[in-house]
Amino acid sequence: MEKDFGGFKGILIIGLGLIGGSLALGLKKEGYKGKIYGYDLNENRVKTALELKAVDEGFNSLENIPWESVDLVVLSTPVKTFLDIAKTIKPFLNQDTVVSDVGSVKGDLVLKIHEVLKPHTFVGVHPIAGTEKEGIENAKPDLFKNARLILTPIGEDTEKVEKVEKLWKDLGSKTEVMDPHLHDFVFASVSHLPHAIAFSLVDSLITLSKESGIDLFKYPGGGFRDFTRIAASSPTIWKDIFLENKENLIHTLDTFLQSVQKLKDAIEKEDENKIIEILSESREKRLSID
Amino acid sequence: MEKDFGGFKGILIIGLGLIGGSLALGLKKEGYKGKIYGYDLNENRVKTALELKAVDEGFNSLENIPWESVDLVVLSTPVKTFLDIAKTIKPFLNQDTVVSDVGSVKGDLVLKIHEVLKPHTFVGVHPIAGTEKEGIENAKPDLFKNARLILTPIGEDTEKVEKVEKLWKDLGSKTEVMDPHLHDFVFASVSHLPHAIAFSLVDSLITLSKESGIDLFKYPGGGFRDFTRIAASSPTIWKDIFLENKENLIHTLDTFLQSVQKLKDAIEKEDENKIIEILSESREKRLSID
Repeated sequence: MEKDFGGFKGILIIGLGLIGGSLALGLKKEGYKGKIYGYDLNENRVKTALELKAVDEGFNSLENIPWESVDLVVLSTPVKTFLDIAKTIKPFLNQDTVVSDVGSVKGDLVLKIHEVLKPHTFVGVHPIAGTEKEGIENAKPDLFKNARLILTPIGEDTEKVEKVEKLWKDLGSKTEVMDPHLHDFVFASVSHLPHAIAFSLVDSLITLSKESGIDLFKYPGGGFRDFTRIAASSPTIWKDIFLENKENLIHTLDTFLQSVQKLKDAIEKEDENKIIEILSESREKRLSID
Repeated sequence: MEKDFGGFKGILIIGLGLIGGSLALGLKKEGYKGKIYGYDLNENRVKTALELKAVDEGFNSLENIPWESVDLVVLSTPVKTFLDIAKTIKPFLNQDTVVSDVGSVKGDLVLKIHEVLKPHTFVGVHPIAGTEKEGIENAKPDLFKNARLILTPIGEDTEKVEKVEKLWKDLGSKTEVMDPHLHDFVFASVSHLPHAIAFSLVDSLITLSKESGIDLFKYPGGGFRDFTRIAASSPTIWKDIFLENKENLIHTLDTFLQSVQKLKDAIEKEDENKIIEILSESREKRLSID
């Protein structure tokens, strides 16, 4: 199929960080012919986006944006800002302008944004991509290529949903549609929980280092490096994600705490069969995803 | 310095798995001129070791080994077998034969082996290398090159310790001497704890998958893959390590559980400052090891 990026003529990216910047660079690299507008509160990021030729025009005032030429808005700021931004930009939107996002939390948030923006269409999008690095200076045009991407549309406007999906397919993403609440449960389990654990593991090693007087971080062998890579992720972004997906995350954390307790009990009791059972089931499952 | 691999003339490797096989292949590749003897209970592993030309002679009966030509024995079976093997081989050893190992647990175990083997010298060695794969068929000659390696000698025989250290240096390892008990605390923290957590995380996702009816392992994005790689490690080997280093591991698990609880409490109370504090401190520490 021809690359038409969903037929959008003017795309406004709100928030010029790693993800917003990578989207802009990806569109340029893959041959998007329309205009790319970038907006950020931070003037330096706008400047960098222009220098990198990621965007055609950059703004740090909403009033100056040529809204009449914008038919897609992509929110790529921290998720907790989405509702306020949706309220603020609504008066500027053309009748047919689609609003989308690239946030890691969906669920109720998607329903609330939908409510604020209607009759405009909101299409929730979560690209399963990113690194522990932040900022447009780390943006990569191929970040979304071959990456999975979840769409969480609600409502009936399938034509606009398909346009947004086409845009990401033309960037090389593997798209999939999911209910927004199911999305939040799944990603609490496979992403937010592992991040919480990685931060907690490093936190516990800080405590153990203080307690023993030995700098344990001098010994990063044995899997520790890979294992805690995600603990280098942005505190602000992850604080927001943890709070926005609080209920699911608490539930998965409780389930995880039970699993740790189960293994700990088996070790304390020296119950070899139980330990082998837990380790073997986990190993088998883990091997199944490679 | 000239490569003399500590001057050993005949090295017997007991246990022809990933580590034992890699040691043999590494010695061959780096130009070791002495004989390499391999012993394993499993006849197929002996056959494979001979086919790979990792060992010069292979045995699955201790009686048939030309013990008069062996001046270094390296135990590379699961750690829980070390004491029994030490008792069994002691009558065969020449007066000057050094016994060493490649196990991940030291501490009291080293003291016990020392006790069993004296007056022979035992030099505890832990190469910080390995993969989640097992078996001599996955052995790599360069496994120990540039890898850190901890020696945990006790007693006074520094000359023999230095010979063992020289052997590993000639294989390219970066050696370091550590008290055996300190070793076990450090590796409980930076290796055994992360492994226990990785197994527990996968275990909790199995529970969450059953509970929700959704196969969460279909969504391995967002850091989960790297994070749980070590959960594919050998259940038998890790069961033994967990039990041999039980006290240290339980202590580090308790500290970790407190860290998880602290983060969970902050999320439940929506205490943004506390969350940011935990995440920022962890991030900073994690970045310091890259």
